[in-house]
Amino acid sequence: MATNGTNGANGAKSNTSKFDPNFTRNVINLMSAETKPRHREILTSLITHLHDFCREVELTQEEWIIGVNYVNAIGQAYKKNRNEAWRVCDILGVESLVDEINHTIVTDVEHQLTPTPSTILGPFWSPETPFRELGASVVQDMPKDGELTFFHGVIRDVDTGKGISGAVFDMWQASTNGKYDVFDPENQTRHNLRGKFKTDEEGKFWFYCLKPTEYAIDTSGPSADLLKIMGRHPWRPAHIHAMITHDDYIPVTVQLYPKDDQYLETDTVCAVKDDLLLDFKPIQNEKNGAVLEVEYEVRVLNKKYKPDASTLMGNANQDNFES
Amino acid sequence: MATNGTNGANGAKSNTSKFDPNFTRNVINLMSAETKPRHREILTSLITHLHDFCREVELTQEEWIIGVNYVNAIGQAYKKNRNEAWRVCDILGVESLVDEINHTIVTDVEHQLTPTPSTILGPFWSPETPFRELGASVVQDMPKDGELTFFHGVIRDVDTGKGISGAVFDMWQASTNGKYDVFDPENQTRHNLRGKFKTDEEGKFWFYCLKPTEYAIDTSGPSADLLKIMGRHPWRPAHIHAMITHDDYIPVTVQLYPKDDQYLETDTVCAVKDDLLLDFKPIQNEKNGAVLEVEYEVRVLNKKYKPDASTLMGNANQDNFES
Repeated sequence: MATNGTNGANGAKSNTSKFDPNFTRNVINLMSAETKPRHREILTSLITHLHDFCREVELTQEEWIIGVNYVNAIGQAYKKNRNEAWRVCDILGVESLVDEINHTIVTDVEHQLTPTPSTILGPFWSPETPFRELGASVVQDMPKDGELTFFHGVIRDVDTGKGISGAVFDMWQASTNGKYDVFDPENQTRHNLRGKFKTDEEGKFWFYCLKPTEYAIDTSGPSADLLKIMGRHPWRPAHIHAMITHDDYIPVTVQLYPKDDQYLETDTVCAVKDDLLLDFKPIQNEKNGAVLEVEYEVRVLNKKYKPDASTLMGNANQDNFES
Repeated sequence: MATNGTNGANGAKSNTSKFDPNFTRNVINLMSAETKPRHREILTSLITHLHDFCREVELTQEEWIIGVNYVNAIGQAYKKNRNEAWRVCDILGVESLVDEINHTIVTDVEHQLTPTPSTILGPFWSPETPFRELGASVVQDMPKDGELTFFHGVIRDVDTGKGISGAVFDMWQASTNGKYDVFDPENQTRHNLRGKFKTDEEGKFWFYCLKPTEYAIDTSGPSADLLKIMGRHPWRPAHIHAMITHDDYIPVTVQLYPKDDQYLETDTVCAVKDDLLLDFKPIQNEKNGAVLEVEYEVRVLNKKYKPDASTLMGNANQDNFES
């Protein structure tokens, strides 16, 4: 940038700011007229925040080079079923934040109830999960330490409070060893712990699953170094994933956590919300042998509030999902 | 984060902010007591700016995934002599900014002259460059289109204005094909267009080199995609690199540009400063055949202003430099 405020001709001091006040604007202005408006908007904000970060912490050259090497290492660690940049984003809360940004719906009416908040999809959703009958079990392969759970609930319209018939509750969960079916072919059959359930006329659904159990994320890549310097553990609280859809309603993706899980406050991917905590209650003499039951109400918004709403299904996750 | 301000218990609306105002603080607070203070400082700023960027542009999930894939691609493109993360930083002005942050010296006195500002080292400095006699030529292999240039100057103490005896002017430049010696073994011998010169008793130095010529940065990696969406070219203005050192003075690294170069305002790595522009003047009947001459004054600060000053030599560049 040849306009940095110092005066080269005679060497006289001509400004008093510690750093060149025009530098960031000059870099942004290198974008040409042909730059698309959205690219310009994103890159302007990105460059501004990147530069402000460097100035704010007065990043040393040694630290900058550590950062350069770290970015290179992230990409070098990429392999099938290990998207390291994705994982680093998760640790820094970026996937959760982007999820919130894209699912916050500002309506023009005051709802008596808030809609169920979404949380991140994660890399383990499958487009091939089968429909199962109401009351069926998703537990094809029962682990020795599994606790069979009767899961029942209702999907309601936020505006009317009425149950929605024909809505789909598409759920998936890891087994007690922390692995999802396709990542654990020795212990699990395909579609184990996955199922789609269609609500009845009152909007109700019910099925059997496992009580979810905690697991640690993959720590074999450079994302683990980031956790280490932050003094953080790699554990996710136990959770059941679900994607709730209906043609007339805005889809919502959730993760549902036992309300007494020890990692709720320190989830390694920052994806816990108050509204997604469930109470798993012991039961006895259940007809199919369940030892726990849990109830859950989903509240969804009509698509009139966001006509272009869609889930971020296949395209985002195909890369991660081994089918 | 289980403290997001919505009220899960009864679903009643309890806040009016568009996005969870506590989310970023919650992610930062995941750092534990054992996190080192400098790590905490850097990561707090990084997470804050990263989140503010996402909210400011309301980053979509599709855009976020493009970013995730881009970071992975940067690392995957890394190879010997192509540090792609470094190059992306250069395009975004980060190397130049970090250089400025680390070389801005606030003194407690008013200098009549400003010290010579530094600019980025780049990946082509060599720790093995030989000393040459004053008046020698660094041109071991003369390209057909080369213009021999008589380069002369003085290295002065900013405070006293006096020339500094025994200071070292360590220079390197690309040949007219845009390549540095070790990257061009077919056309150039080792140390071609590199030389260290020690100033005489008056602080003067002089030697012969080529008039520098413009070249484009490597565009075979994903950094070129970034240039493309910004509507930017890959060209660097012509330049001569130099690192000026003396035991008693703060080292300074510069790039020196012909003042009429067409890429001064749009340098692809954002490394041009007003004070580093030189006037290459035609001369005739020079005793060694030079067709141009150029004069340059370096102004350096005594180390009393920054006792721990050092150049960022080997450690930063070893990875890039093929010796």
